[in-house]
Amino acid sequence: MASMDLHSLLQDNGSKIILYVWDGLGGIQAGPEGKTELEAARTPNADRLVSEGACGLLEPVSPGVTPGSGPGHLGLFGYDPVEYQIGRGALEAVGVGFDFRHGDVAARLNFCTLDPGGLIKDRRAGRIPTDESRLVVARLAEAVREVDGVEVLWAPVKEHRALLVLRGEGLGDGLEDTDPQKEGVPPLKVRAINDDKANVRAAEIARKVLAKAMKAIAGEKKANGILARGFAKRPHWPSFQERFGLRAAVVAGTPMYRGVARLVGMEAVEATNEIAKDVKSVAAAWDKYDFFFLHYKHTDKAGEDGDFDAKVRYIEEADSGIPALERLGPAVLIVTADHSTPSAMKSHSWHPVPVLLWAKTARRDGLREFNEIACLRGGLGMRPSTHLMPLALAHAGRLAKFGA
Amino acid sequence: MASMDLHSLLQDNGSKIILYVWDGLGGIQAGPEGKTELEAARTPNADRLVSEGACGLLEPVSPGVTPGSGPGHLGLFGYDPVEYQIGRGALEAVGVGFDFRHGDVAARLNFCTLDPGGLIKDRRAGRIPTDESRLVVARLAEAVREVDGVEVLWAPVKEHRALLVLRGEGLGDGLEDTDPQKEGVPPLKVRAINDDKANVRAAEIARKVLAKAMKAIAGEKKANGILARGFAKRPHWPSFQERFGLRAAVVAGTPMYRGVARLVGMEAVEATNEIAKDVKSVAAAWDKYDFFFLHYKHTDKAGEDGDFDAKVRYIEEADSGIPALERLGPAVLIVTADHSTPSAMKSHSWHPVPVLLWAKTARRDGLREFNEIACLRGGLGMRPSTHLMPLALAHAGRLAKFGA
Repeated sequence: MASMDLHSLLQDNGSKIILYVWDGLGGIQAGPEGKTELEAARTPNADRLVSEGACGLLEPVSPGVTPGSGPGHLGLFGYDPVEYQIGRGALEAVGVGFDFRHGDVAARLNFCTLDPGGLIKDRRAGRIPTDESRLVVARLAEAVREVDGVEVLWAPVKEHRALLVLRGEGLGDGLEDTDPQKEGVPPLKVRAINDDKANVRAAEIARKVLAKAMKAIAGEKKANGILARGFAKRPHWPSFQERFGLRAAVVAGTPMYRGVARLVGMEAVEATNEIAKDVKSVAAAWDKYDFFFLHYKHTDKAGEDGDFDAKVRYIEEADSGIPALERLGPAVLIVTADHSTPSAMKSHSWHPVPVLLWAKTARRDGLREFNEIACLRGGLGMRPSTHLMPLALAHAGRLAKFGA
Repeated sequence: MASMDLHSLLQDNGSKIILYVWDGLGGIQAGPEGKTELEAARTPNADRLVSEGACGLLEPVSPGVTPGSGPGHLGLFGYDPVEYQIGRGALEAVGVGFDFRHGDVAARLNFCTLDPGGLIKDRRAGRIPTDESRLVVARLAEAVREVDGVEVLWAPVKEHRALLVLRGEGLGDGLEDTDPQKEGVPPLKVRAINDDKANVRAAEIARKVLAKAMKAIAGEKKANGILARGFAKRPHWPSFQERFGLRAAVVAGTPMYRGVARLVGMEAVEATNEIAKDVKSVAAAWDKYDFFFLHYKHTDKAGEDGDFDAKVRYIEEADSGIPALERLGPAVLIVTADHSTPSAMKSHSWHPVPVLLWAKTARRDGLREFNEIACLRGGLGMRPSTHLMPLALAHAGRLAKFGA
């Protein structure tokens, strides 16, 4: 079918939508009783919303494809993750909560160990701990602040990883990686992927930056070299407000999720990853926004750790946040996930995620509990996650009739 | 949604996938008990896989479209049958198991009866029996072997049908049919569809070939004329290995299915259409391939014959092949069909086909039996058949995460 342009149908009726994401919620059967985590959890509040709303399953990216956190959330936000791809450097900048501006060029760095001849001995610098890595980054930030009029910014990430951002006019991001992907050879020089002036200039700057930087850390025992990957600018995407007419806030205690939400123009309000506090943040910002993306992280973490019982407990904790959200009086309250993280797999997976949509206009489907198996019989069916935003807008009364 | 390129996500973990196709499996209710053939059949092995796996329904081509055997299988192989179309001549060549090479131009022939004035009296030569037709083809193969440096090959098909293949350099396949689609007129001359040099040359060769051929069989009582249709080359498609990173084998006793599988680069191993033997062929080739397409023909034949009871029996026979396949230790075992062939309709149909996918990572959907109606509540939902391969790859652990 041809793609529907919702923009011409948008109408602002002042209604509010809450998208409450239980990260990694979906599971597969495990444990002695052969249940999923969500089947095993007691979720009286979600179950009540289910009985008054409609359920279904969302496929985050496309069949069989396991989404990273970026693509998983973009789908829920109504941005097709295959169409809206983020360069690795940009994702890293966004992920650490860096103030990543249009025109900036970001790269992900790995510290490496070079031998006295300048050849790579260890591509990950012995996976030095984050504390050690921070000191190296601090030295770099001191030593290399500006090159040829371009501002140079550094930020620590986890372990041997760091972020480099070049801020200046007319920089391209068509640059090749300097990581040769093997040891026993020197790091590559930064090269532009083509003759484009902006790319050539950025390559020259990046070469100088990395040369200075490696000189500054030459005395380090482990992290005495740098490999740069995934040079990328902040993408120019239409904002959430432009596309859906919604002033949107993100309430997410983890920088990565705030970052992805900011890429589509959501504004970050205070968040802690403690659900009682984060629900209060939603309440405090209630009058200022139309749409609230509230993120709950712990479910995913427990799944990644392979801890079935912990995931069950965190699901129950997430459920406890619901009544306070209901009391705010949203027109639409959605509970779903960016992807599945079955504790039996200790990783993200491609399995569709359960979704519940509560609204006065829901066509109730007779379900009484919120879990992956019940949702198979839900009124929303199984769909790509990009279908969620149009449904949310409709149930919020924010879409006019199409055609006479 | 934008189309996902799986290629960049492929990873080889050595796991194996079996696609076990019960041809024409899907049915509609018939008989005194008002059951489908699959509902009526006892399938203890498939039912066990169902209880440990996930089920659903696949729509082979598009809603309401009844697939031929080629499109039905291409969808299961992950090749959108609307995008990947095979010319009739090419399909015929493939269908009879001809060694159809890149550059060859094939056409499907119908023998016809011409009156003394050269006008078509019967477009199907009285549907002469295959044995008779074989003799005519043998005479042609004797009389016309080469024209202007182009090798000319002939093969019998069923009844009044035959195959012509031109093998030489620089031949196009943009040629019009010579069948006027009515009687009382002479066969048309072969014409190129445009001025393209390769088409013009091929048209000239084909004209000479058909003129010589008709002279050679002018003395036949019934098959004294030839109508040629659907000139086509072997398509240049990306292979199964290129697209999915799988070394694939086809185990199919019927040439047609081997042929379609070969078009996507599968290698044919021994097959007999006896399930016990064909399962042994899978076992014998186990170490050499990653993917096995095992084809079971008899279910479709019984459906075409309108024989409900026979179809039930053959389904039960197909089911008996499962345990030996399980013992091979596949990561993923799929049972499904290329299309429905309800015995009540005595033909292929458009009805979605049941699918069961067994894997350790399956999210079990609570089903206990394998049939069209149970599958409506299955965890895989109802999908286009092209979704099957991405799901198979995911459950085999062969797809990396998309995005960070």
